[in-house]
Amino acid sequence: MKELARIANVSSAAVSRYLNGGSLSQEKRERIRAAIEETGYQPDTVAQMLRTGTTDHIGLIVPKISSDAVSRVTAGATRVLSEKGYLCLLANTENDPEKELAYLGLFQSRPVAGVILMATVLTPRHEEMLQNAPFPIVVAGQQFRQVPCVYHDDFGAAQELTNRIIARGRKKLGYIGVIEQDVAAGLNRRRGVQAAMKEHGLDPSALAVVNSPFNVAGGRAAMKKLLETTPDVDGVICATDLIAFGAMETLRQAGRSLPEDVSVAGVGDSWAGEYITPHLTTAHFYYEKSGETAARLLLDIVENKGEPGPIHQTMLGYTVIERESI
Amino acid sequence: MKELARIANVSSAAVSRYLNGGSLSQEKRERIRAAIEETGYQPDTVAQMLRTGTTDHIGLIVPKISSDAVSRVTAGATRVLSEKGYLCLLANTENDPEKELAYLGLFQSRPVAGVILMATVLTPRHEEMLQNAPFPIVVAGQQFRQVPCVYHDDFGAAQELTNRIIARGRKKLGYIGVIEQDVAAGLNRRRGVQAAMKEHGLDPSALAVVNSPFNVAGGRAAMKKLLETTPDVDGVICATDLIAFGAMETLRQAGRSLPEDVSVAGVGDSWAGEYITPHLTTAHFYYEKSGETAARLLLDIVENKGEPGPIHQTMLGYTVIERESI
Repeated sequence: MKELARIANVSSAAVSRYLNGGSLSQEKRERIRAAIEETGYQPDTVAQMLRTGTTDHIGLIVPKISSDAVSRVTAGATRVLSEKGYLCLLANTENDPEKELAYLGLFQSRPVAGVILMATVLTPRHEEMLQNAPFPIVVAGQQFRQVPCVYHDDFGAAQELTNRIIARGRKKLGYIGVIEQDVAAGLNRRRGVQAAMKEHGLDPSALAVVNSPFNVAGGRAAMKKLLETTPDVDGVICATDLIAFGAMETLRQAGRSLPEDVSVAGVGDSWAGEYITPHLTTAHFYYEKSGETAARLLLDIVENKGEPGPIHQTMLGYTVIERESI
Repeated sequence: MKELARIANVSSAAVSRYLNGGSLSQEKRERIRAAIEETGYQPDTVAQMLRTGTTDHIGLIVPKISSDAVSRVTAGATRVLSEKGYLCLLANTENDPEKELAYLGLFQSRPVAGVILMATVLTPRHEEMLQNAPFPIVVAGQQFRQVPCVYHDDFGAAQELTNRIIARGRKKLGYIGVIEQDVAAGLNRRRGVQAAMKEHGLDPSALAVVNSPFNVAGGRAAMKKLLETTPDVDGVICATDLIAFGAMETLRQAGRSLPEDVSVAGVGDSWAGEYITPHLTTAHFYYEKSGETAARLLLDIVENKGEPGPIHQTMLGYTVIERESI
């Protein structure tokens, strides 16, 4: 910046004002602009990518960018990518696994250094793609065999939430889940609930299970079904917070007091859980951190190209946020 | 697909199962895979980019990808970009206008066909960048002079919400705003509130104004300040829903009944407004649509390169969602 001031023949303060968008005479502004052009000065770390010439593209394939969890993972991943001089090619598949494959195919003919895939289901064609892709891939949010990945302790979180609900004296448990082809959110959370039941001498096969899409309306409808089959349910674990918000609404409309009559818990720690009545008990997952970790893992592989090493699979823990709903 | 089945010597149903990840013998799977490789078949529109060879990069610069509104704009923009054969380079500036400029600079030396900038503030350096960039730029969320843009009717939304609050008989109004360098969310919403006051014979300069950051904690703190200066406030318009959630919390803690003692409204229609008590009255903005519109506007310019035409500035309307809080 001192160098800029010297070349432009202005004070350092003027350069600083220029860079921060402050007011400045048209003449000084022009001189500083010319000096910046002349020197190629870039005021920000982002632009160091330019000077070092290392910029490369990393593909980020996500199921739904407007979901809270997905956008937090994306925030974490882009932070690390930009720090390390990479640009993020965002592919939003709108929950269509077919598009995940199409983008993986597309990236094969484009210059990407690697791909972060926020995966939901693992089909045989996914496996094939993951094994044969000409660039490294890190999976975020799921643990797939033989693939570098970062995922959450879905089993443990559901288990601990269920432990706490059972500790309240609840015996007649229900579970509102999501499709179990989604191993992380579907299968592993349901299994965590049943593990806790077993631990406490309850019959895991007595768990009343209804599935739902990943949204509030789904939780509402699923809770209606659950009340039909199991009207005396006194503890409900929901695979996501949004589902829990819907379930609580249905329970209240059916005349149940929360948490007096029924305990409800979600998973994921949506920011809204703190403001909804009763405040939702849930498990916090470290979504931003998982995006950062996935990006670091991928860049390690990208930058050590040719040096084979063991596959890294990182599971991130959770923190139970106990509020009022159980 | 029929062609694939013929080449692989399997049934169309088998090809369909393969493409949808169903179970299939290893042998058939291998034959279909080989046929796909041979024919270059791509099952998805995304991958049509590959065949037509038109893929190009569009930069998308956003202030905070994990915000609800921003991620919805991004979802809309990426939908149109992928339909039209473009890939989205995502730049997340973490609310640092300096990084907006750095990315605009970076994209000058990278092959981008154009940039969508979700802008917050317009500094002189922004103006310079917008005028001199070697690629077309469309601004989303703000109306900047002489720049193609898509923005929301911030003024009208705040005005109509205030009208409705005044119609409840409220006379002592407060406004929790955001920095006014952000013309859309800061200045225009505050002006809309005051226009409604004037319309109804209230003195606009009597509006009690406190500023807040864009989050719940900010709304909480700002409402505390507002209650100190104006304990008899009976109507509060908040620049965003998150701010309104915080304000309502503070009001309840101060012993106010909502909406009996005080009417509160937000702006933006966060999904959570429907579940928070009392359900929040707010204005819906068409964020996904604005992302789509910005992308279409940009691609029109990109694809008609060389044919100069008038600058398009599109304002999208709002819909007031009246619930229980006013």
